[in-house]
Amino acid sequence: SRNIRLAVIPGDGIGVEVVTEALKVLEAVGTKVETTTYDLGAKRYHKTGETLPDAVLDELRGYDAILLGAIGDPSVPPGILERDLLLKLRFELDHYVNLRPVKLFPGVETPLGKARPEDIDMIVVREGTESLYAGAGGVLRRGTPHEVATQESLNTAFGVERVVRYAFDKALSRPRKKLTLVHKTNVLTYAGDLWARTFDRVSLEYPDVTTDYCHVDAASMFFVTQPERFDVIVTDNLFGDIITDIGAAVAGGIGLAASGNVNPDRTAPSMFEPVHGSAPDIAGQGKADPTATILSVAMLLDHLGLTAEAAKVEQAVADDLVERLTGWAGRTTHEIGDDITARVTG
Amino acid sequence: SRNIRLAVIPGDGIGVEVVTEALKVLEAVGTKVETTTYDLGAKRYHKTGETLPDAVLDELRGYDAILLGAIGDPSVPPGILERDLLLKLRFELDHYVNLRPVKLFPGVETPLGKARPEDIDMIVVREGTESLYAGAGGVLRRGTPHEVATQESLNTAFGVERVVRYAFDKALSRPRKKLTLVHKTNVLTYAGDLWARTFDRVSLEYPDVTTDYCHVDAASMFFVTQPERFDVIVTDNLFGDIITDIGAAVAGGIGLAASGNVNPDRTAPSMFEPVHGSAPDIAGQGKADPTATILSVAMLLDHLGLTAEAAKVEQAVADDLVERLTGWAGRTTHEIGDDITARVTG
Ligand SMILES: CC(C)[C@H](C(=O)O)[C@@H](O)C(=O)O
Ligand SMILES: CC(C)[C@H](C(=O)O)[C@@H](O)C(=O)O
Repeated sequence: SRNIRLAVIPGDGIGVEVVTEALKVLEAVGTKVETTTYDLGAKRYHKTGETLPDAVLDELRGYDAILLGAIGDPSVPPGILERDLLLKLRFELDHYVNLRPVKLFPGVETPLGKARPEDIDMIVVREGTESLYAGAGGVLRRGTPHEVATQESLNTAFGVERVVRYAFDKALSRPRKKLTLVHKTNVLTYAGDLWARTFDRVSLEYPDVTTDYCHVDAASMFFVTQPERFDVIVTDNLFGDIITDIGAAVAGGIGLAASGNVNPDRTAPSMFEPVHGSAPDIAGQGKADPTATILSVAMLLDHLGLTAEAAKVEQAVADDLVERLTGWAGRTTHEIGDDITARVTG
Repeated sequence: SRNIRLAVIPGDGIGVEVVTEALKVLEAVGTKVETTTYDLGAKRYHKTGETLPDAVLDELRGYDAILLGAIGDPSVPPGILERDLLLKLRFELDHYVNLRPVKLFPGVETPLGKARPEDIDMIVVREGTESLYAGAGGVLRRGTPHEVATQESLNTAFGVERVVRYAFDKALSRPRKKLTLVHKTNVLTYAGDLWARTFDRVSLEYPDVTTDYCHVDAASMFFVTQPERFDVIVTDNLFGDIITDIGAAVAGGIGLAASGNVNPDRTAPSMFEPVHGSAPDIAGQGKADPTATILSVAMLLDHLGLTAEAAKVEQAVADDLVERLTGWAGRTTHEIGDDITARVTG
């Protein structure tokens, strides 16, 4: 089999550190992989003013997949790297499924006193290319007492239906076969109506999937009080952003939360990244947990059809996490990477 | 002193039950109160098609305050009672501050294994009259594959500044004097820019208040992992809706979460209501906890300047909650109301 051609964007802060470990694991699992590193992020922005040049974007289209560490630095005004790099990648490469497992691994401490691993095992299918993330909006009389600022959520039948279908397929592939739509239909009546109607219509084609609806505020509460309610969730871009961070919190922290920005039609490469950010406060100190990025690599392997390798990486992480239960703490980024690599090899 | 003229809207489901108990406590605390009940809600909607007739709205303007139970029933299509009754009240009566304490009372069980009462003691100042709650938006080609649905967040300098000022004043009145702005400035760049600039500008007038900023996704996580980060929070209408439900979850559940829809300028009466909904599944069974509504009455008394009475009600609730620690469970709505009433009288 030919090599996997992988574009790597380490990015800023701890992004570089966690990606290094994840690549070590990827190589150890025995896939033939050919990586090219791209220096996108805050440094390049400061040096050249560039965020994502067209030529780079075009090159990226040629890879089998992209691995991203983290983007962002306080020295860059808010919104620039997010909109012109991170979100631009998601939009341009049509990553309409933002896949975020929320899973409590055995051995992992959760802030929820009573939750057991079997209570927290869901997948959030977050829409990735629409809604308030479109960047639509405007401002009048900026800086005056008469300023008006708008922000527009753009939703299309095309965009909603494809992600809803993906979520139904995903639900069908899981033992519980349950899909919950999370939105705020009682307030966002136009967008919510489109989502709810699409969800109901597609559900007719999936008689084996149990469906449910939950307002985003209630869902946010249930993530804490009754996470066992959820199996697969499908939701809008913004709501998905929020609830997956609650999910990360209850499943042991942002250091473990993996994600895939998936283009299911494979018209462009999918991109895998930890949910966490660049964490400039702990960057360069070997304190970051590379586990989220390593789990993102497992998702990447799975996406490329290398399911055995994906399972091996996930198992290595699971074994490593159980080990932590016995007090094996205080390891550096590097040491955690080495330990998981050893499990993958051994 | 003259009687408090109170409009009461019990509403639907458990709304009726919890309001009955809250009024019992209100009378017991020794305030002279004159109540008028309004039958707004699902029943009236089904009978007459009316949600909030103009004549009723005009009458409501004449009261000192409004106590609301809960609105909503699955028999009414989503959005109607919310938009044309609940939100209409908030908008028409200019309830620009939606005040939601998130406080873990001693004795109350929290899903967070390690949280102590001193860790969870904050107030969320949620904007109540703008943003995505404006109901702005539209739809093209509804029900076709070419449907487009938009939803617009409307924000004004006027609207943001007044709620931000309120929040700074509130922060100044508390021991920690810390105020956190919660938004999503990196994605909602137009609205976020207005909020962030306004927050920074007003902060100059409050040198004694420590300020902080948190994206809504991170804040949602911190509510679970580090609630002690927060003292007073100011945020947009939608984000406030979501994070206060997480707050309710970590502070012991929706049965305890009180709220005030406050018009600080007193150009119209403020409205107090529990955060929970009408819970049709348990309505009429005496299972609802009236505590959230009773705490909302404490907020109502405080708003009317009856601070001693407010403190008395809050203390009675606090004492009742400690009692629950010793296994005093399984009481009916009515019994909890009686017990708190007895503490207020005794
Ligand atoms: C950095 C930011 C633009 C991004 C988002 O909001 O999607 C992040 O929070 C995420 O969840 O991947
Ligand atoms: C019922 C609904 C319209 C309302 C809101 O979204 O504000 C509720 O969730 C609340 O928090 O009071």
